Amino acid sequence: MKAAILSVGTEILFGQITNTNTVYLSQQLNTMGFDVMYHYTVGDNPERLREMIRTALKDCDIVITTGGLGPTQDDLTKEIACETLDDSLVFSETSLNNVKSAFRKSNSKMTDNNLKQAYLPSRAVIFPNNHGTAPGFALESRPDAGEEDAKGCIICLPGPPREMKAMFEESARDFLRKKSGEAIYYRLIRTYGIGESSLETALLDLIDNQTDPTLATYAKEGECYVRIASKRATEEEAITAVDIMTDKVKSIVGGCVYSTDNEDLWEVVANRLIEKEISVSCAESCTGGLFAAMLTEIPGISAVFDRGLVTYSNQAKMSELGVKKETLEKFGAVSEETAAEMAQGLAEVSGSELCISVTGVAGPEGGSYEKPVGLAWICCVYNGKKVTKKFQVRDLGRHWNRNSTMLAMMNMVREMIS
Amino acid sequence: MKAAILSVGTEILFGQITNTNTVYLSQQLNTMGFDVMYHYTVGDNPERLREMIRTALKDCDIVITTGGLGPTQDDLTKEIACETLDDSLVFSETSLNNVKSAFRKSNSKMTDNNLKQAYLPSRAVIFPNNHGTAPGFALESRPDAGEEDAKGCIICLPGPPREMKAMFEESARDFLRKKSGEAIYYRLIRTYGIGESSLETALLDLIDNQTDPTLATYAKEGECYVRIASKRATEEEAITAVDIMTDKVKSIVGGCVYSTDNEDLWEVVANRLIEKEISVSCAESCTGGLFAAMLTEIPGISAVFDRGLVTYSNQAKMSELGVKKETLEKFGAVSEETAAEMAQGLAEVSGSELCISVTGVAGPEGGSYEKPVGLAWICCVYNGKKVTKKFQVRDLGRHWNRNSTMLAMMNMVREMIS
Repeated sequence: MKAAILSVGTEILFGQITNTNTVYLSQQLNTMGFDVMYHYTVGDNPERLREMIRTALKDCDIVITTGGLGPTQDDLTKEIACETLDDSLVFSETSLNNVKSAFRKSNSKMTDNNLKQAYLPSRAVIFPNNHGTAPGFALESRPDAGEEDAKGCIICLPGPPREMKAMFEESARDFLRKKSGEAIYYRLIRTYGIGESSLETALLDLIDNQTDPTLATYAKEGECYVRIASKRATEEEAITAVDIMTDKVKSIVGGCVYSTDNEDLWEVVANRLIEKEISVSCAESCTGGLFAAMLTEIPGISAVFDRGLVTYSNQAKMSELGVKKETLEKFGAVSEETAAEMAQGLAEVSGSELCISVTGVAGPEGGSYEKPVGLAWICCVYNGKKVTKKFQVRDLGRHWNRNSTMLAMMNMVREMIS
Repeated sequence: MKAAILSVGTEILFGQITNTNTVYLSQQLNTMGFDVMYHYTVGDNPERLREMIRTALKDCDIVITTGGLGPTQDDLTKEIACETLDDSLVFSETSLNNVKSAFRKSNSKMTDNNLKQAYLPSRAVIFPNNHGTAPGFALESRPDAGEEDAKGCIICLPGPPREMKAMFEESARDFLRKKSGEAIYYRLIRTYGIGESSLETALLDLIDNQTDPTLATYAKEGECYVRIASKRATEEEAITAVDIMTDKVKSIVGGCVYSTDNEDLWEVVANRLIEKEISVSCAESCTGGLFAAMLTEIPGISAVFDRGLVTYSNQAKMSELGVKKETLEKFGAVSEETAAEMAQGLAEVSGSELCISVTGVAGPEGGSYEKPVGLAWICCVYNGKKVTKKFQVRDLGRHWNRNSTMLAMMNMVREMIS
């Protein structure tokens, strides 16, 4: 089946936001076996939006729109979709209640323009919005549509990526799966500590000699993915094929694989700590709380996470963690010795079983020949063992450097407790 | 003048790459006074590419394509552009020499298919590629083009962002500037503490009664934007018009405006702290280090940021911050009293001028009728003042709740130091 993705919003044409919705939807649709033929973007303009939807439907079975579903005057996608497939908007009590309840939950006042969101196309399958106010929907053309009428299915999703993704996963995906009629199953294998070209080289035989399942590698901030996808008559067959291929991949690069279930590295680490009931604390300098923040993203972590001390200044390193003044003077704040004293001091004040520390140069300033931007020392104390490691990430800016260092810490914890 | 941006490449339709070229070109074109009407993406397919270029030219004066200029068989953009505007490809000695010299520079062997890149439309203005092999060009329709013929200007740029940007800056921009003759200026005003529908309602008179500058509102994770855009004969006039409108917006919702320069809230707060040389520390429970992590994203923060204590357990709250056992027992960890003792204790251990604390229920578990998920108490001590505030964010999941609480903290600091 052929699909087009149509983004609605003048802010996209202004270049004010990067269109991540289209990337996400393209991946999802391709994975489900749809041929994505076109991406379109149009501003909040009814004539051009109308024309573009009609153009897209000429060639495609399905058009997915994002944006333009909100309460304001320039939100017109619903109206145009409805008009294009010859339907009319009807008032929905359920939708009004959902909008009202969203406002109640957020303790904010519902202005009158929000009433607009309670009107929906009469023939549409409604997708509730559990993360915002504007509902989405799928609308099919009339069975008796004439030669000149637009034909196909329009799926309207909200613009904010968080709402759009949730609605896709909770409602739209099932709707689309039924339309597709084929079973596709895919799995993302996530690795840490191997580059994309090395990963591809290691898996080249598998990649070249496979038609189904297919394998592909992707690089993403600080790590690499292997995607295994199978398209079969039934979902069971597809899953079995992917399972077998997963084992083959693991037999080759298993040491780098940290998840076969598309979990983030911090998710894997946090859940492992929770399962094993290992109490944990951290002491951070260059990452500034990022390690603690990512670990505590995971629900249930309060059972094992005791404290995180962001000791940014030397004074804080000394008073919070007992790092010696002489150590800082002799070896510097970014050194093996300081990292070790931070972790040991943390173990004493927290009493946690696993204590990890980091000190490094996040950049852009503060680097030197001996200690360039991107350098970090990490020390982990666990189970009577103390491991100190030096990491040098490729300096791609402060954000990247801090994030890569945080991932290195996570992976070190993963290795220590496995 | 109206413009469309057309990206060519099957990898974009697969969702394998994020289309940053389009974001860049949209920004550039808008700033130069072009109306970007559409974004299109199409795969490496000659029929669909031909159709899309023709569709774009119906409505636009200029179509800028990226991608499909390379040496391989599926690179067809040049051929289709040439055919659409009724020109023919001719061999260019200069271009061949450029291609050859690019290969020499990179010490690699030139394969025969690269000869293709020496053929260019006879009427085109050629844009040399100083960072790759494929040249770009601008091609105008014939002055004697008939009623049925495509009319306008096609500008073809290479796909790799580095080559595309360099060619735009070195050649295409000047070409376009001559065509435009108009200037546009826009500004994003960022607000905190007001919802999109309330913001629109407050600004409705301005929105409805303006043709230039135009105003539009947008919602984004936990905050809202107002975009003001003006198109005038000169850039100076456009800036003046936007300045005047900015003042009008600020006179209505000024209390909520935190940046007129598209900065993030934590960026504004961090830079204000650095400028004013206010030393700062934080004590976090529910946000788990997120406040510290966002603040330390900003370069130069080490001049004022002393420490961040993530006191997740009650034990950590007591031993790190001196929160009293009785307080925790009587009022609970999530309470005004605990937040206040956290901030006061932090002020004592850190000696920082500004100390902020937070304790709340991030969810999904741990909520109750009295203390629902999304509740947070924030206390800020600064300059002899102590302010404690209760926040109840709409529970949209742990990630959202933590992020919204972090923003509330940032805004509280902003208010305290302004």
